Amino acid sequence: MALDEARIGLAHGNGGRFMRELIHEVFARHLGGGILDTDLDACPLPTLPAGEVVFTTDGFTVQPLEFPGGNIGSLAVHGTTNDLAVAGATPIYLALNVFIEEGLEVEVLDRIVASLARAARDTGVQVAAGDTKVLPRGEGGGLYLATTGIGIRRPGLRLNMQEIRPGDRLLVSGSVGDHGICVMLAREQFGLSGELLSDAASVLPFTRALLEMEGLRFMRDPTRGGLATVAHEIARAAGCSVRLSEDAIPVRDTVRSVCEMLGYDPYYLACEGRVVAVLAPQDAEQALDAWRALPGGEHAAIIGQIDAEGRPVVIETALGGRRMLEELEDDPLPRIC
Amino acid sequence: MALDEARIGLAHGNGGRFMRELIHEVFARHLGGGILDTDLDACPLPTLPAGEVVFTTDGFTVQPLEFPGGNIGSLAVHGTTNDLAVAGATPIYLALNVFIEEGLEVEVLDRIVASLARAARDTGVQVAAGDTKVLPRGEGGGLYLATTGIGIRRPGLRLNMQEIRPGDRLLVSGSVGDHGICVMLAREQFGLSGELLSDAASVLPFTRALLEMEGLRFMRDPTRGGLATVAHEIARAAGCSVRLSEDAIPVRDTVRSVCEMLGYDPYYLACEGRVVAVLAPQDAEQALDAWRALPGGEHAAIIGQIDAEGRPVVIETALGGRRMLEELEDDPLPRIC
Repeated sequence: MALDEARIGLAHGNGGRFMRELIHEVFARHLGGGILDTDLDACPLPTLPAGEVVFTTDGFTVQPLEFPGGNIGSLAVHGTTNDLAVAGATPIYLALNVFIEEGLEVEVLDRIVASLARAARDTGVQVAAGDTKVLPRGEGGGLYLATTGIGIRRPGLRLNMQEIRPGDRLLVSGSVGDHGICVMLAREQFGLSGELLSDAASVLPFTRALLEMEGLRFMRDPTRGGLATVAHEIARAAGCSVRLSEDAIPVRDTVRSVCEMLGYDPYYLACEGRVVAVLAPQDAEQALDAWRALPGGEHAAIIGQIDAEGRPVVIETALGGRRMLEELEDDPLPRIC
Repeated sequence: MALDEARIGLAHGNGGRFMRELIHEVFARHLGGGILDTDLDACPLPTLPAGEVVFTTDGFTVQPLEFPGGNIGSLAVHGTTNDLAVAGATPIYLALNVFIEEGLEVEVLDRIVASLARAARDTGVQVAAGDTKVLPRGEGGGLYLATTGIGIRRPGLRLNMQEIRPGDRLLVSGSVGDHGICVMLAREQFGLSGELLSDAASVLPFTRALLEMEGLRFMRDPTRGGLATVAHEIARAAGCSVRLSEDAIPVRDTVRSVCEMLGYDPYYLACEGRVVAVLAPQDAEQALDAWRALPGGEHAAIIGQIDAEGRPVVIETALGGRRMLEELEDDPLPRIC
């Protein structure tokens, strides 16, 4: 077996010759040229830029591995660098873990790693370390990835849920639920998938646009559990109520139709390229203008506000009615990230 | 479903209430109290000690999850911190990725995370970031982990295979193949497992003991592919021949017997708590003495030397015969780490 074989075998993970060839011909080919040195146990990092170091990690198990608008490789870059971005940081380095199921087509792996490398370049982050394991057939789901990121942010930056005050406004940087529905359609092969792209992308331009605003309290990307879950996290940590305005929340027509058809609620569906930000009321409009001026920010909106008292998460409907958004329990749509 | 259920379900990975409870009751309980804050997207790291930052990552898929002498949790700490240690660094922070297969017993997970936490404390490393995904039943192998480490080393430390010169000596810090055979016995249930413990452990005391020696060229922990694979890596990178002395290589009787019975070669079997070091000849004896003085270092040995020319890896037998150790191709024993 060699890499001109069409599929990954167990021997590609054993530390020997086949593994060396896989590392060289797929991973080093796409990710080399920078700091990555596949001969080292650990990579020395050039002196980090001045600032506070932040550290985060994320695992990726999305099914199918490729979907309209991205794949598990680009997602593994965006997911982790977005966690750094919403913490107010600039992503600098990534480490990459790869778990490949025996039988995966080398061509698919190559496409995914190429896409991961492209996303890393576009986001300005370097893959500095990596490891590959091969899982026996039937124990792997094709491919799982884990990425760990190091970023740098301005020292003294205070961004956390405890900073949130009654009266603060909630903003979202774009339509919600695109990624969840897109992956679901790709998985179920409804034949509708061409119409909708995942929102998976770097949110760095959006987070950077707000970092100098004094009234910025907190940012988070609404991935697993969607907007409703972020709202619950805010309510719990800040000891307040989050009141959302249903009319204001941007939801694409396709997403809304599929949700109505299948009984999903778009507020619980994952996004992979959106930011929810909480700002003091006097800065909300300026933040909205900044986001709307960015490519992909046309649908940014002020979607709610923080109340001192009330049920944790309430949504006001078009006709003035109110309903509670409960905390997510059973998962309508697993493995979307 | 709640965490008083005995097994992990898909909803423990969805971002909602069950996941929050799992994180709180298993991960935060064992790993909390330090820097880990499960409410954050990314963890701000206190100012790192002065020195060069090194970065590494490793995935863990060992089967069975628990084996005599360790489990996948302690292994995930030792594997990654050992990669930092052999690079001459002190491990400081870890990030932890957890992929749990639906149906895993919560009790098993709890035991593994407790063991991971203990290994981290003993090694002096803090788990600063984490992520959990749940895989559908039949797509996971029980539990996979990935850990990413940040360490600090003395600036200007030159440890790499290009430093190796003809005449240099190879040392190993203890018997080889214990981990591979131990896991194999635990997996196959030969009923022999009680006799042999995995060598899985931190190698930090061993690497630290050599760091001030001027003649230290290179260190590596012989994990996947074992001693033979490290020897091949050295031969390839340094453009030299590695000549091993069969009599000198420490192999436990149990390991030797099992290998003879099953036709394995112990030099290809994984260790998870050993170091191979290459030193200038004048420093080899001093290094050996330093290692033998350490707990667990009683069987350390000088096992070979570097020749300018010859086949990549040669082993001299007791009777003066020579044979080549080929580069590993097919894997006799997958999923040992």
